[in-house]
Amino acid sequence: MSKKTIEEITLNVQKFCEERDWDQFHGPKDLAIGVITEASELLEHFRFLSEEQALELLSNPQQKEEIEDELSDVLFFLLRFSQRFDIDLTKALLRKIEKSERKYPVEKAKGKNTKYTKL
Amino acid sequence: MSKKTIEEITLNVQKFCEERDWDQFHGPKDLAIGVITEASELLEHFRFLSEEQALELLSNPQQKEEIEDELSDVLFFLLRFSQRFDIDLTKALLRKIEKSERKYPVEKAKGKNTKYTKL
Amino acid sequence: MSKKTIEEITLNVQKFCEERDWDQFHGPKDLAIGVITEASELLEHFRFLSEEQALELLSNPQQKEEIEDELSDVLFFLLRFSQRFDIDLTKALLRKIEKSERKYPVEKAKGKNTKYTKL
Amino acid sequence: MSKKTIEEITLNVQKFCEERDWDQFHGPKDLAIGVITEASELLEHFRFLSEEQALELLSNPQQKEEIEDELSDVLFFLLRFSQRFDIDLTKALLRKIEKSERKYPVEKAKGKNTKYTKL
Repeated sequence: MSKKTIEEITLNVQKFCEERDWDQFHGPKDLAIGVITEASELLEHFRFLSEEQALELLSNPQQKEEIEDELSDVLFFLLRFSQRFDIDLTKALLRKIEKSERKYPVEKAKGKNTKYTKL
Repeated sequence: MSKKTIEEITLNVQKFCEERDWDQFHGPKDLAIGVITEASELLEHFRFLSEEQALELLSNPQQKEEIEDELSDVLFFLLRFSQRFDIDLTKALLRKIEKSERKYPVEKAKGKNTKYTKL
Repeated sequence: MSKKTIEEITLNVQKFCEERDWDQFHGPKDLAIGVITEASELLEHFRFLSEEQALELLSNPQQKEEIEDELSDVLFFLLRFSQRFDIDLTKALLRKIEKSERKYPVEKAKGKNTKYTKL
Repeated sequence: MSKKTIEEITLNVQKFCEERDWDQFHGPKDLAIGVITEASELLEHFRFLSEEQALELLSNPQQKEEIEDELSDVLFFLLRFSQRFDIDLTKALLRKIEKSERKYPVEKAKGKNTKYTKL
């Protein structure tokens, strides 16, 4: 497992974009569009597949690499968004998990696939 | 900036899900659905807003926190997907950036918002 | 089954938006964002559900109505997009089905969940 | 403008799918995935474009046809979903517009791009 922090890999993303002079295209709305369009490419791999077939994809090295690329594209835009607008994404995630712990208390949420509004 | 590695924060995500016994719901297809539905909540904040209004949102602390929460929700599912299917997301991202450097050479892509297929 | 044409129901959509003076917000990019964010609300109903549970939702009248509302919201933005930019959506759909017939010939595509690029 | 009803064009969609024996792949979850992945292809056309550039796309006949194809792909899955699960989409849309009229009363919503929860 790579030992880099989010801060470190964000520098790679920033460098890539700044070398190409892309700040001008990377407002919040377009970066959010970046996130969702890449998320869709991830999902498309599993369209019309059964759970078993979806798992089979992941056991094929070439198709797994394609899926890793899609995950990376989503992460790329998350990191770029955070970098552009001074968001500490690690801190944000840990705070959000704490909020989710309150919304989904273990004793209520265990083994359930129900939204917290219906728990 | 938080100094945790992606590996470390993934442990928080894993613990949260395993305490709730959610492995049974977290196949690849449903986690990809998780990624895109959270990406949509991020995008929805900017729907019908001008670029200026989108930036204004980010200068309001309460609305910025909401947006940070949406980014975190997307990241949560990316990390969960990676953890469930043994993907080193840091390594995947760095490899993907290398691929993108070949698809978008600086001399061709600089200052352009064109897809690589049309460069 | 309702006997209205797409042209007729598009008039309802147009009237709704024009009475609210929303042309100013309804450029192509924002209407495309409208389509995808509503599509996400549809999908969210089925998140983490098995195929059986997804079908059960549709046999519950209240939940079916919620799902019908989400489908309608997506259709609303499709019709609004078409109306704003002079697209005959009926004609476009029929032309697209003809293209798909060539991409997915019956003898190759029958009983397969494979993308045409891999048929 | 084509004078067909939603009922009529739905028959074309149904015929296309049934000839290919695709009922087996077209559960509610996968059709909802169909809707959102096609919605993303529509949105991708406008990624990183200014409003002016987005409008320019629509004045280019070839690119307009591509966009019409994406709108059609979204509509295809909406109609297929409705057909599979006995939904009268015309009736659903008109009912939803009535609900929206209550959520967005003209006197409050006129000229505003605000969500009804914040009106």
